[in-house]
Amino acid sequence: MVRTESSGPRTPPVEVAAVFREVLAEDQVRTADEIGEAYGHDETLSAQPCLPAAVLLPGSTHDVAAILEVADRWSIPVTARGAGTGLSGAAIADHDGIVVSFERMDRISEIDLDNGVAVVEPGVRLADLDAALAPLGLVYPVRPGEDSATIGGTVNTNAAGMRAVRYGATRNHVLGLEFVLAGGQVIRSGGKVVKRSSGYDLAQLVIGSEGTLALVTRVWLKLAPRPRNVTTLLAPFTDLEQITGAVPRILASGLAPLVLEYLDALTMAAIVHRSGLELGVTDATREAATAYLVVQLADDHADRVEQDMLALGELLVDELGAMDALVLPGQAATDLITAREQAFYAAREVGFHDIIDVVVPRAALPAYARRVGRIAEEFSAGIVGCGHAGDGNVHMSVFEPDEQRRAQVMAALLEAGVELGGEISGEHGIGRHKKPWFEALTDPAALQLMRGMKAAFDPRGILNPGAIFDLPRSST
Amino acid sequence: MVRTESSGPRTPPVEVAAVFREVLAEDQVRTADEIGEAYGHDETLSAQPCLPAAVLLPGSTHDVAAILEVADRWSIPVTARGAGTGLSGAAIADHDGIVVSFERMDRISEIDLDNGVAVVEPGVRLADLDAALAPLGLVYPVRPGEDSATIGGTVNTNAAGMRAVRYGATRNHVLGLEFVLAGGQVIRSGGKVVKRSSGYDLAQLVIGSEGTLALVTRVWLKLAPRPRNVTTLLAPFTDLEQITGAVPRILASGLAPLVLEYLDALTMAAIVHRSGLELGVTDATREAATAYLVVQLADDHADRVEQDMLALGELLVDELGAMDALVLPGQAATDLITAREQAFYAAREVGFHDIIDVVVPRAALPAYARRVGRIAEEFSAGIVGCGHAGDGNVHMSVFEPDEQRRAQVMAALLEAGVELGGEISGEHGIGRHKKPWFEALTDPAALQLMRGMKAAFDPRGILNPGAIFDLPRSST
Repeated sequence: MVRTESSGPRTPPVEVAAVFREVLAEDQVRTADEIGEAYGHDETLSAQPCLPAAVLLPGSTHDVAAILEVADRWSIPVTARGAGTGLSGAAIADHDGIVVSFERMDRISEIDLDNGVAVVEPGVRLADLDAALAPLGLVYPVRPGEDSATIGGTVNTNAAGMRAVRYGATRNHVLGLEFVLAGGQVIRSGGKVVKRSSGYDLAQLVIGSEGTLALVTRVWLKLAPRPRNVTTLLAPFTDLEQITGAVPRILASGLAPLVLEYLDALTMAAIVHRSGLELGVTDATREAATAYLVVQLADDHADRVEQDMLALGELLVDELGAMDALVLPGQAATDLITAREQAFYAAREVGFHDIIDVVVPRAALPAYARRVGRIAEEFSAGIVGCGHAGDGNVHMSVFEPDEQRRAQVMAALLEAGVELGGEISGEHGIGRHKKPWFEALTDPAALQLMRGMKAAFDPRGILNPGAIFDLPRSST
Repeated sequence: MVRTESSGPRTPPVEVAAVFREVLAEDQVRTADEIGEAYGHDETLSAQPCLPAAVLLPGSTHDVAAILEVADRWSIPVTARGAGTGLSGAAIADHDGIVVSFERMDRISEIDLDNGVAVVEPGVRLADLDAALAPLGLVYPVRPGEDSATIGGTVNTNAAGMRAVRYGATRNHVLGLEFVLAGGQVIRSGGKVVKRSSGYDLAQLVIGSEGTLALVTRVWLKLAPRPRNVTTLLAPFTDLEQITGAVPRILASGLAPLVLEYLDALTMAAIVHRSGLELGVTDATREAATAYLVVQLADDHADRVEQDMLALGELLVDELGAMDALVLPGQAATDLITAREQAFYAAREVGFHDIIDVVVPRAALPAYARRVGRIAEEFSAGIVGCGHAGDGNVHMSVFEPDEQRRAQVMAALLEAGVELGGEISGEHGIGRHKKPWFEALTDPAALQLMRGMKAAFDPRGILNPGAIFDLPRSST
């Protein structure tokens, strides 16, 4: 017997699958041994893996609607999954829930050149979209750092990444969404129009909601012209605070950097070692540097970007305290950016236990760095990092094997960010992993309002019930 | 006796005021003859003016919370008002409701240079913010065309204007909001962080909600470096379709125009006549032109913008069918942009009866223009216009004295936009004026979801109940 809204015991896995076999083809429902280990986790460190009762593989919006109609009728928890590259545990289901994996909904439906819009299914991977756009001179400029991520996943986390300093986060590039409510109703909000003031923007609410409000089945993305010339500069500093002090000056200069990243010396050493990078930094500079700034500029005219890079180098060395300003040759630049994007994997390989992606007002970065230093000292924990300096978004890796102490370190790091006017997550989302801290650090009135939104979209609370916040018992 | 939730007859105006006198100072409550005629309308053509029972003038968030606590207790309808420059009737209250005018909450609380953020009260006018930012080399780049508009008003309509083709709409520049719910609860969503993935983005939902979800009491705005050199080009065309065909090519060129506007010949003639413009267009050109494209380019380097303008001129004349490409001298350019911004007033002065601001996918502009032509012919109505060509956002003025026929023309114009993948309003909002058409042309499932949002924010339905959509009787 499958679980009904008010029933007590949880449904045995095999019977959960049976109700979906009535609406899907045989090969669209996987249970028990057919479920690969990967479906039990994402890339989150420290999150508990859990295999779901079933993995469903919809091929169309129609399939998704059928799944949600059934799931809502039987109150079966539903967790959406893209490529499983998330860093907050939002793609992990309960053992009696189902995972809806969008791997078969991976079609680029349309690249509309006249409107500058791509219409895609949620399972399309960033790398595949980019491969389709590059020959057309276009780019979808959101680059979270993991090209195997899906559009659906990045929409649901409001992913951002290194180029957000120029282009903004995912939310700034989504013109419209088609999504399915618990119960199976299909709704479209937005489309190929670039702006609108016609009632509430439901798409903007669904963006970043981590599969808790609806399942996204189609996305309208705003495209940009692909920059023709990109140049990369590396500037070592003796002090991280000089970097964070330099950021407002660089942004006010009007140079509109494509990338504005910092790495502390340990993180730089780790990624240089891991990737075998040759950046031309002298031993003397390396020994004196405690942090590095990486800046990319882009322009369609090669001479302009060259001129701008010269001006930036002068500004950095003459006025902003950089020890040097090295313009990197093309391959070294590509390698450095790739290595930076993989800093998370470097941290994982050397055994770090958890990561944060706190975002603070960018001018609060020095204060936040000092707080992190004190927290590391207080708990004798290893904390190193890098981050999107232009966005105030830090990526810190935490080394603390003891689970209980680690939880205290994490709480202290997140709380410090919120105290400085920031938020728990700048781009990874809350998921299951950061839910307790999110609930503790969020204004109860705001939390209640979010629960009200949730109740309007998903009255029975079947959509990713483990993520972001818990529902009060009365509403489930 | 004031009205309670379930009582039948409507409250006499004077008693509505009495309940607010308990929480506000004497000079913050205006009734009867103290209410100026202006508080009964905004700038919407064809909307019915109505004086409210009282006008309240809060000076602080605390005042707003007190007002909403009282209003909710007695189920008194509340309509927010900025400068009254709106074009959809969203600032018009019922005769038994109150208007909350934000004219005393007009402080720029902070201009934070390091974070590139302005923190302002909702009553700050765009002109005053711009005057404060100009000496600092900064700009709040949303320019809806009416500088006396308030920030609060532009947030509530998601205003956009001519520079949206480069910078996007208001929603893309609001980093955070403080708002007050019906009942008086104060909530803050966002702040000085430039991106976030920490629960639902409540601020994004409130933006564009026309005062129906909450009253906005503070706004965190993202600022941009002020462009140092702006150049303006005017290109006459024999055919509007050539202009709309040129737009994707210009946007794909990477020139990133600041402004990309079209005006039909009649609108151009009207604004030239009204403002006494001298644009250097020959008589022969003027006779052959049926539409004009206006493009502004901006760059910090004067030589670059000059070079780009040359390239644009060549593109327009050699490849895109422009009859000419006139780079306008500084004063003529300023005058033309100002005159274009006042096109609405020009239309009003010559007696047009209504306007639309339909937005369609920009490549659908030619198809929309043909539909408009057929509608004008069918109803023998006068329809002329201009618009944000880069955004697919048309501003049409409708001449049709007969109210019933005008309603048919309006319905046909809005319906044509929706059929082409567009929306009823690109930037003015729905308000009271376009509510019937919005309700008729919106997917009932989406409308129901919006009503669910409304119920979570404002359970008794006191906030601007006349705007966007009606509530079902059971929920008020």
